[in-house]
Amino acid sequence: MKRIGVIGPNKSMCSKELYDFGVELGKRIATADRSIICGGLGGFMEAVCKGAKQSDKTFSGQTIGILPDEVTDNANPFIDTAVATGAGIARNLIIVNSADIIIAAGGGAGTLSEIAFAWQKKKTVLCVTLFDGWAKELAGKNLDSRENGLLIPVNSIDEILKHLDNA
Amino acid sequence: MKRIGVIGPNKSMCSKELYDFGVELGKRIATADRSIICGGLGGFMEAVCKGAKQSDKTFSGQTIGILPDEVTDNANPFIDTAVATGAGIARNLIIVNSADIIIAAGGGAGTLSEIAFAWQKKKTVLCVTLFDGWAKELAGKNLDSRENGLLIPVNSIDEILKHLDNA
Amino acid sequence: MKRIGVIGPNKSMCSKELYDFGVELGKRIATADRSIICGGLGGFMEAVCKGAKQSDKTFSGQTIGILPDEVTDNANPFIDTAVATGAGIARNLIIVNSADIIIAAGGGAGTLSEIAFAWQKKKTVLCVTLFDGWAKELAGKNLDSRENGLLIPVNSIDEILKHLDNA
Amino acid sequence: MKRIGVIGPNKSMCSKELYDFGVELGKRIATADRSIICGGLGGFMEAVCKGAKQSDKTFSGQTIGILPDEVTDNANPFIDTAVATGAGIARNLIIVNSADIIIAAGGGAGTLSEIAFAWQKKKTVLCVTLFDGWAKELAGKNLDSRENGLLIPVNSIDEILKHLDNA
Repeated sequence: MKRIGVIGPNKSMCSKELYDFGVELGKRIATADRSIICGGLGGFMEAVCKGAKQSDKTFSGQTIGILPDEVTDNANPFIDTAVATGAGIARNLIIVNSADIIIAAGGGAGTLSEIAFAWQKKKTVLCVTLFDGWAKELAGKNLDSRENGLLIPVNSIDEILKHLDNA
Repeated sequence: MKRIGVIGPNKSMCSKELYDFGVELGKRIATADRSIICGGLGGFMEAVCKGAKQSDKTFSGQTIGILPDEVTDNANPFIDTAVATGAGIARNLIIVNSADIIIAAGGGAGTLSEIAFAWQKKKTVLCVTLFDGWAKELAGKNLDSRENGLLIPVNSIDEILKHLDNA
Repeated sequence: MKRIGVIGPNKSMCSKELYDFGVELGKRIATADRSIICGGLGGFMEAVCKGAKQSDKTFSGQTIGILPDEVTDNANPFIDTAVATGAGIARNLIIVNSADIIIAAGGGAGTLSEIAFAWQKKKTVLCVTLFDGWAKELAGKNLDSRENGLLIPVNSIDEILKHLDNA
Repeated sequence: MKRIGVIGPNKSMCSKELYDFGVELGKRIATADRSIICGGLGGFMEAVCKGAKQSDKTFSGQTIGILPDEVTDNANPFIDTAVATGAGIARNLIIVNSADIIIAAGGGAGTLSEIAFAWQKKKTVLCVTLFDGWAKELAGKNLDSRENGLLIPVNSIDEILKHLDNA
């Protein structure tokens, strides 16, 4: 089973539109029988996990939260498996390392650091172009001369699912 | 559901007796509907995960492997959720942070570092006294004057399960 | 303000012009009696450390290398204090945490991740606009709506030194 | 120049005798022209750094503190180079990785975790037998069957210095 990394803004920078998109995306990923690995907190991370757990195809252990803290208390309520890294925002690298492919939407500096790590680890990032933020900004671009074409623009959930099927 | 940390020797220091004990322990933990978080590698870690997945009460996501490497390739085949920390043996702290209670059996220096971290994080460690190693050596002792009674001696799987029920 | 973080490309993406700029910058920082903390490897990191150690104002312990590896073997020869984090590229956060102010020049995905971390930790980054790369690209921009004005464009060593004096 | 790792109790578990020993030890290490890498906090760590800085042979950058926090504020006042790892007590591995040889004295669970990491990284630990704690307890013992003779008992500063000279 493929492990899907999901990155995007925490609560303070997640619009209602992006949250709703995340819930719908989570449902579709659950139906496609994939697991979800994310930072475990609110906003877009919570939305995707919430959607997954609402699907009647969901399974236990499907949503994995890689938390910055030394305790699991701040995991969003839709996380099945909470991992308390105690590594602060350096935990972003663990998400990238553990995912087979990554979906990015919206995104401030945290999401930007994850995209930059994904590039260095040669992981494909599906960059949603529907919402303002670093995912849209970097879609289709190259971060440096070492790799090429890892940041794939996507503009719908259907398109995302097609990429997951082919991955 | 309580998350059970499982710590003990990797393949090179795990006797057949300890491995068989691990398989049986894993079956019983699965039946008790708990999840298992461990270092994700071989020996005692593998044995407990193998036992869990043999149980007809097992569920997806029950076995979680917190790996030292930047990739998930070295996870034992009974790990449902592999986390590639890239933190080397410092990942032992993540296991301790993420577990509600810990079971230790046998044990060389790696297990010793985990027991020492558990003590500092005030986590209870059920120390199996049936096999030589640091778990037996430290059972019932105090590591320093800051805490007291966290390292509980246990000499059977029944006794372990009783502690899990009460935890 | 004492500790200057220095971020920029490793050997494979560091032009001769950027390297020469780094050497000159290192000399001037040394003369200004600051210490330098960087990723400890080649390219721009090496250049700045080399310049510092060429200054007759240099002092022992002035150049600090926060290395990704578990050993110090790959430190460039101008590092006084090598720290073997074993954290891989997650060590970028340690550089940011430990610096009072940061200078960025050139830069691929690694430098980008460091700028993104600096933003989240509210550290000022002096972004050199003389060389292509993320430092120039992001100079004067905001990474998200949480902070403002942390990425200050600078186009000469004199300007950098003025900022260090005022900081 | 050899880098000397120094491990031992923080303030709450450091007796006056152990602190005084640490100050004297730090003076002698400074005179021997070595640098000191430690956890950067109080108690035995502070004592050794204090002694080093009291020596008229001390040099800038001689005392390096690998701190658990994301900021350098808690470094003891005798630390020249403070590194803010943000890794919590997992930073103990960074001390071990970065040291050429280690001196341990007294010691609770934190020191125990460092000795266990040192063993796994095949680093020699000079275990002071003059004070109660894990350093004395483990002096001359083997932690598991993978290595042999890494934990060397020492009962005076002269003896420590002789080992440093030969290392």
